[in-house]
Amino acid sequence: MRIAILGCGNVGSALVGILQDRADALAVQSGARFEIAGIAVNDLSATRPPHVPVELLTADAQPLVADPSVDLVVELIGGLVPAEELVRTALKAGKPVVTANKALLASPEGVQLRHLADERGVDLLYEAAVAGAIPLVRALRESLTGERIHRVMGIVNGTTNFILTKMSEQGADYADVLAEAQALGLAERDPTADVEGFDAAAKAAILAGVAFGYDVAGDEVMREGITAIRAVDVEFADRFGYVVKLLAIVERTGEDALSVRVHPAMVPKSHPLAGVRDAFNAVFIEGEAAGELMLYGQGAGGLPTASAVVGDLIDATRNFLAGASAPAPDRQPAHLLPESDLQTQYYISLDVIDRSGVLATVTKAFGDNNVSIRSMEQEGYAGEARLLFVTHVAREGDIQATLQALAELDIVEQIGGVMRIVGDPG
Amino acid sequence: MRIAILGCGNVGSALVGILQDRADALAVQSGARFEIAGIAVNDLSATRPPHVPVELLTADAQPLVADPSVDLVVELIGGLVPAEELVRTALKAGKPVVTANKALLASPEGVQLRHLADERGVDLLYEAAVAGAIPLVRALRESLTGERIHRVMGIVNGTTNFILTKMSEQGADYADVLAEAQALGLAERDPTADVEGFDAAAKAAILAGVAFGYDVAGDEVMREGITAIRAVDVEFADRFGYVVKLLAIVERTGEDALSVRVHPAMVPKSHPLAGVRDAFNAVFIEGEAAGELMLYGQGAGGLPTASAVVGDLIDATRNFLAGASAPAPDRQPAHLLPESDLQTQYYISLDVIDRSGVLATVTKAFGDNNVSIRSMEQEGYAGEARLLFVTHVAREGDIQATLQALAELDIVEQIGGVMRIVGDPG
Repeated sequence: MRIAILGCGNVGSALVGILQDRADALAVQSGARFEIAGIAVNDLSATRPPHVPVELLTADAQPLVADPSVDLVVELIGGLVPAEELVRTALKAGKPVVTANKALLASPEGVQLRHLADERGVDLLYEAAVAGAIPLVRALRESLTGERIHRVMGIVNGTTNFILTKMSEQGADYADVLAEAQALGLAERDPTADVEGFDAAAKAAILAGVAFGYDVAGDEVMREGITAIRAVDVEFADRFGYVVKLLAIVERTGEDALSVRVHPAMVPKSHPLAGVRDAFNAVFIEGEAAGELMLYGQGAGGLPTASAVVGDLIDATRNFLAGASAPAPDRQPAHLLPESDLQTQYYISLDVIDRSGVLATVTKAFGDNNVSIRSMEQEGYAGEARLLFVTHVAREGDIQATLQALAELDIVEQIGGVMRIVGDPG
Repeated sequence: MRIAILGCGNVGSALVGILQDRADALAVQSGARFEIAGIAVNDLSATRPPHVPVELLTADAQPLVADPSVDLVVELIGGLVPAEELVRTALKAGKPVVTANKALLASPEGVQLRHLADERGVDLLYEAAVAGAIPLVRALRESLTGERIHRVMGIVNGTTNFILTKMSEQGADYADVLAEAQALGLAERDPTADVEGFDAAAKAAILAGVAFGYDVAGDEVMREGITAIRAVDVEFADRFGYVVKLLAIVERTGEDALSVRVHPAMVPKSHPLAGVRDAFNAVFIEGEAAGELMLYGQGAGGLPTASAVVGDLIDATRNFLAGASAPAPDRQPAHLLPESDLQTQYYISLDVIDRSGVLATVTKAFGDNNVSIRSMEQEGYAGEARLLFVTHVAREGDIQATLQALAELDIVEQIGGVMRIVGDPG
C-alpha cells in the first residue's frame, strides 16, 4: 500500500514515526504493508525530526498525488488551498483519502468532496478532524448508526477548555490565562480561531454530518466565543454549582430541523462534561436507545492526531483491499433552527438600585416577555443590589427581548453576566 | 435479512421494539430490511410487552437457528447452556452471530467460539457484552487497532458502582446500600456475581482479547470484590483525595505478558474515572500514541444493551452482504503475570498502641520488605494511634509480606483498611 503524505508538521512527522515503529503490527491489522511513496512539504529546507526520511520529501504535491503507484493519500496540510484540489484529484482517481483538515471538511467545498467520495464509492475518512485521538467519528458512523441521536454536545477545542479550566480553578482573568496558554504553546499568537469559536464551529458542522446526516457548513453555525467571559461569571457559576465550558452543540429540534451552535455554557458540576479539564476534549451523545454516552481524550497534538489517522489508514486499506468503502450516511441539506427559536435556560445577573419595588419591576420584564424564572438570589451592597436569576427553558428571542427591556429600565445599573445553562435536569 | 432472536427478556423485547420502530432507517443503514424469523423463549406463557409478536415465539431454539431461511442469529439467552451450542450451530452454518453473553464469551468455550468464527470468516460480534451501549469493542477493534495499548481500566459493573457511589456520597454502609440497590432492582437478590467481581472479571477477560489480542478466560482473572469495603475506608479515601471504585484492569506488563484483574481501588478525584457515578460504566484506555481516552455510558439495561446489539446487527449485515467479516485480532494465549509480581501503590491504615518508638518499628516492617512509603499521617486517640500510609509503587508479594509482618507486631492492634491506589501520578 503506497501512501502519499501531504504535509509534515507535528502530525505528519508523528505519523511517519508510527508507520516506521509499528510497521509489522500495522501490516497484520490492515492486510498490507505501508510504504511511504512521498511526503509533500512547503519548505524542503525546514528542520524536521531525524526519523523523517529526507529522500522522500518533495515540494510538488500534485504529481505525488497523481502518481499512479500511489494507492492512498493522507492530507495533513490544513486550510483550503491547495488541500481541496489535492483531495479532489485523489478521490477522482479512486484513491482513498485520510484527512485531519476540519476547515476543509466544514467548508462548502468540503461538503462537495464528501458527496464526491460517496458517489465514487471511495473512502474519505476524517476521524482526526473532529476530536483528535477520540474514536468519535467511527462510533457515530458505525456503532451508533442505528441509533436515533437527539443531541451531541462537545468540548472540542483544547485551547479554550484549558483557558476556562484555569479561570475556574485559579480564579484568574481571561487575558492572564490566555497569555499563559500562549506561553505554553497551547494557544496561537493570534488566538482568534480558538477563542472566537471558529475551530469549534467547524467541528460542530462536521458532527452535524456524521451524527445526523445533514450537510452543514462551518459558517452556518451560530457562534459565540469566550472572550467576554469574566472571572466573576466563572465564580458565580461555581457558587451555583456549575462549570463554564465552551460547547459545540448539534441538536435535533424537529423531524427535519437541527440547531448547530457553539457558545459558552454553564454545565452542572455533576454532568460528565464538567469534569473534562485542561486541554482534553470530550463529546457527550444523547441517543434514544443508548441513553447518555461520552467519549473523552486528547483532541490535539501530533501523536494523538496521528493515532486517529492510523486508525483511518487501516480502515481505508482494508476497504481498498476488499474493494469496498466505509459506510456513508444518507445525506441531506439541513433545516437549521433560527437562533431566535432556540430553547435554553439562562443565567442572568443584574446590578440594580437598591430600592423597594425593584424586584417587582424586574420580574415583570421577564414575565412580559414569556420568560419564567426558576430561581433568584439577591445580594445587597451599599445602595445597590445584585440580582442573580436562573430561568426556566425559554425561547432565545424572548430572552433577548427580556434583556433589552431590562437594559431600558432606570433601576438597572448594569446587566452583568448572561450565560446559557446546558445539561441541567431542569 | 431474516433474524432469529434467542431470548426475550429486557434486552430481547427492547430489540424487537427498535427493529419495529426504526425499520426504515435500519434498512437504509444496513442495506437490508430486517425481518424477525422467530423469537426463541423458555416459557411461551410468560408475560411480555404487547409489541412482542406472539406468533413469532417458539420454545424450540435449535430448529430456529438451523432454519435455512434464517440469515443471522442474535443470542440474548445468557449463560453457557444452551447458548454455546446454539451459537456454535449458527457459526458452523456460516450465520453471523450477535451476542450480549459475557459469561459465554469469557468461558473457555467462548474462546473456542471466537476462534471458530475467525476460522470460518463469520462474524461473532459482542459490543453489548462488555459495557452495554458504550461503543467500546468497535473502538478497540477498529479505531485503535493500530495503537499499542498499554492499559485498559474500566468501571464495567453498574451495580457495584452504584453501591460505591452511595457509600461515598452518603457515608453509608455497604449492607445498607446493597439493600437499597436490591429494592431499586439494581442488584440481584443473590448479588454474588456483581459484588464479588465475577461479572467484571468476565468483562476483563473479554477486554484482554479485544484490546490486546490475548485469549484469557474469566476464571483466570485475579478477582477481589467490594464486600469487605467499610464506610471508614471510603471516608479516608475521600479525605486523601480519592474515590473508591471497583476496576477491571488489563495491563501490558512485558512484551508478551499481561495482568488481568478486578479489584477495588482508590482513584484520585482528578482522574476521569472518579467522576463516573451511580450505575454508569466507563472504560479508560491508555495508548502509546493516542494517550488517554475514556468511553462512558450506560453499561446495562434493556434499551442501551439493545442499542449495542443493533449496531452489531447493522455491521454484521453489511459484512454479510459484502461477503466479508469484521476484522479479527491476531489471537494468542496470554502469559499472565502472577499476582505476587503485580506492581501497585497501596493505602494501608493501622491501629497501633500510642507509645514511643512505634513509628520506627512499623516503618522498619515496610523497609524490611522493600516497600517504600510515600506519605504517612498519624492520628491520636486515647492511648491508641492510627497510622495512615500511602506507599510508592511496590510488588504485590512485598506488600503482602509487609502486611504479614505488621500483623505479627505486638504494637499493631489492628490492620484497618488496605486498598490499592490506581491512576495516581506519583
